[in-house]
Amino acid sequence: MDEEYIEKVKGLIEQKDTENVKALLADLHPADIAELCNDLEPEDARFVYRLLDNETAADVLVEMDEDVRKEFLELLPSETIAKKFVDYMDTDDAVDLMRDLDEDKQEEVLSHIEDIEQAGDIVDLLKYDEDTAGGLMGTEMVTVNENWSMPECLKEMRMQAEQLDEIYYVYVIDDDERLQGVFPLKKMITSPSVSKVKHVMKKDPISVHVDTPIDEVVQIIEKYDLVAVPVIDSIGRLVGQITVDDVMDEVREQSERDYQLASGLSQDVETDDNLVRQTSARLPWLLIGMLGGIGNSMILGNFDATFAAHPEMALYIPLIGGTGGNVGTQSSAIIVQGLANSSLDAKDTLKQVGKEAVVASINATIISLLVYIYNFIRFGSAATVTYSVSISLFAVVMFASIFGTLVPMTLEKLKVDPAIATGPFISITNDIIGMMLYMGITVLLA
Amino acid sequence: MDEEYIEKVKGLIEQKDTENVKALLADLHPADIAELCNDLEPEDARFVYRLLDNETAADVLVEMDEDVRKEFLELLPSETIAKKFVDYMDTDDAVDLMRDLDEDKQEEVLSHIEDIEQAGDIVDLLKYDEDTAGGLMGTEMVTVNENWSMPECLKEMRMQAEQLDEIYYVYVIDDDERLQGVFPLKKMITSPSVSKVKHVMKKDPISVHVDTPIDEVVQIIEKYDLVAVPVIDSIGRLVGQITVDDVMDEVREQSERDYQLASGLSQDVETDDNLVRQTSARLPWLLIGMLGGIGNSMILGNFDATFAAHPEMALYIPLIGGTGGNVGTQSSAIIVQGLANSSLDAKDTLKQVGKEAVVASINATIISLLVYIYNFIRFGSAATVTYSVSISLFAVVMFASIFGTLVPMTLEKLKVDPAIATGPFISITNDIIGMMLYMGITVLLA
Repeated sequence: MDEEYIEKVKGLIEQKDTENVKALLADLHPADIAELCNDLEPEDARFVYRLLDNETAADVLVEMDEDVRKEFLELLPSETIAKKFVDYMDTDDAVDLMRDLDEDKQEEVLSHIEDIEQAGDIVDLLKYDEDTAGGLMGTEMVTVNENWSMPECLKEMRMQAEQLDEIYYVYVIDDDERLQGVFPLKKMITSPSVSKVKHVMKKDPISVHVDTPIDEVVQIIEKYDLVAVPVIDSIGRLVGQITVDDVMDEVREQSERDYQLASGLSQDVETDDNLVRQTSARLPWLLIGMLGGIGNSMILGNFDATFAAHPEMALYIPLIGGTGGNVGTQSSAIIVQGLANSSLDAKDTLKQVGKEAVVASINATIISLLVYIYNFIRFGSAATVTYSVSISLFAVVMFASIFGTLVPMTLEKLKVDPAIATGPFISITNDIIGMMLYMGITVLLA
Repeated sequence: MDEEYIEKVKGLIEQKDTENVKALLADLHPADIAELCNDLEPEDARFVYRLLDNETAADVLVEMDEDVRKEFLELLPSETIAKKFVDYMDTDDAVDLMRDLDEDKQEEVLSHIEDIEQAGDIVDLLKYDEDTAGGLMGTEMVTVNENWSMPECLKEMRMQAEQLDEIYYVYVIDDDERLQGVFPLKKMITSPSVSKVKHVMKKDPISVHVDTPIDEVVQIIEKYDLVAVPVIDSIGRLVGQITVDDVMDEVREQSERDYQLASGLSQDVETDDNLVRQTSARLPWLLIGMLGGIGNSMILGNFDATFAAHPEMALYIPLIGGTGGNVGTQSSAIIVQGLANSSLDAKDTLKQVGKEAVVASINATIISLLVYIYNFIRFGSAATVTYSVSISLFAVVMFASIFGTLVPMTLEKLKVDPAIATGPFISITNDIIGMMLYMGITVLLA
């Protein structure tokens, strides 16, 4: 999908050359059509969109950027959304789309869905929290009864499979709809046809509960290398399935979010977002940083006399502040990542702080010594600055490490996302505390 | 896998209670046994490990932490590695394991593999660069010839499937082994048995080339929601398959790496790594930061006279440095993320710098104005510091934004990982340039 191609499409749209645009679209995967629509002007995108058949149109809508899709849906009447899109979508995608609409429009769309069973599934799914397995699952899957014979089972599977885009596993339930086993697809072609399903299935399959948080679902799929995981309710009934493609989107989103938080961006922002969004994602942390900087100027303002006596003290303000920021960022990043991939448990706070203190003291000793040698050569050993800067550096590194460890672990315990404690939060706080330590130590030593 | 459980296992191991440990292990998934081994002391882990049958032992080894596994393999003779592990592994996992060994040991292990075909596949796979599709693919897959009838095809699939853990797609090749189509598993149960394979298969399947970089493979799997993608060589022959579980590991690793680079960690580091690794991951950027800080002290040292005339100038050093760091980090993070998920193209540098300049000027105006108001109240409008700080802030925000955009985009063009230009690199550089701008502007205005 290069620029040349997009220009060609634009040219055809301008000439209203419906036939040739249609021919081009016929060769494209829905994901590529969505990408094309994202790159076109809204009006041109709508022109392309009207040329698609209903099924493709629904697939393209699922693949579109969320922002573009939201704008798009606002222009459409509820009946069109229901009949042209939702009817052709899997329930998990339909629910995703419905969450973009306000409640009134949701009701309207639901009332226009012709397939009552699908409408019921969507209503049920909308009740689950977006961040749980229930909020991510779909209801499209192949299920068979454990007491069926293999030929019965194959016949039923054939019927159910006709309706589905893709089959990952076949789920086996008992007469009360409780999940009893999983039936890998390969068994369908390798198992003798005489036995009952329950003798061929894999018992006690890995499953998640409707209330399982998405983070955990992601970990389970990753750990056990699954392509899908069944979702059960509180009495063990099979209610849905989560597929690996949705989980992969979650992994991507989660890591992008952590990265953005660590970089001082307060909301999801992309290079092609408009100016308002670009500014509002950045300004909050810049303003907090500004307040931190003004706070620092107030603190330093109390030490006129110290600066007057030792004017060279001012030269090391960037070194002390910068080192505190760097050390704190490193420590907090290691903790946030450990908590995110579950290699670290919030219960081990004390042990982790102890370990961090040892690492910090090694780094602090090396840096303070090197700076001491430099200042010894520059100012001589008698100058206040020579020992005051090194002692302050040591103290700042120790403090920043322990603070950078303690804060995210405490947040995790309080069930607050620890990622907010990285990046600018850590560097601004450490900058201020660093200045206080520096000034305090200098006054004590001078 | 909670602490209580691990303590219980430790107790049983201490008592050398082989029977009960074996009983416990029988209920566990290989991924859980691997997790258990990661948590145990090396000696206890080896005890557990010796109790496993060969197939489980191979699966557990695949799931182990890379560091633990490497240590583990060093202790084992080549013959054991070949016969107890590699023989039971899929080729992609076997190649992963072989890459942990030095070349001599690789040769030894290869010479002990009994299945000559598998040994040949491993030798072929080891030739590919680790960061390409060839380096990630495995050779285990089900392939059928396009000219077979459906019954022939089913018979052959049945035979091939017996050897495999999991089937994702069935690939269709022509007489020259060139990939012609894909056969979704659902077709196996829904297609009439009369037709030839080539009339049922999906033609022109999405595939990747052996030399396709892993980043692109990840994007293709994500974009088209695939569970596996076939890999072809330069003349279109099917040579392997990459599955979604390996791709998901890549997504995770890639995002963790970007996050670590942005946080000033120079190598992969986990909370449970030893002190040497913890220190050596952090010290490089701390030392660079220290040099930056000393450099800053030299620059500021040239402006004695300015500080003597306007001692309040020193108070704003943290504000100027911190703001430059925050702005630069934000800009570079947006660019790095855009390049990583392909929403941004390195060719659009000029356009992006232009856009960034507009966003920067909005932020710069707001921050400079607020600080101006504060200083106006604190020092009055006549003080040099009142306008010098605000003008410097404006200049620093503009510079840091454009620099934070330009550097990662230039690195991308030079085919260097742009993620190294985030985090401490950006904040240290912006700190130094910020001080130069601040001092330069102050001298001009004073």
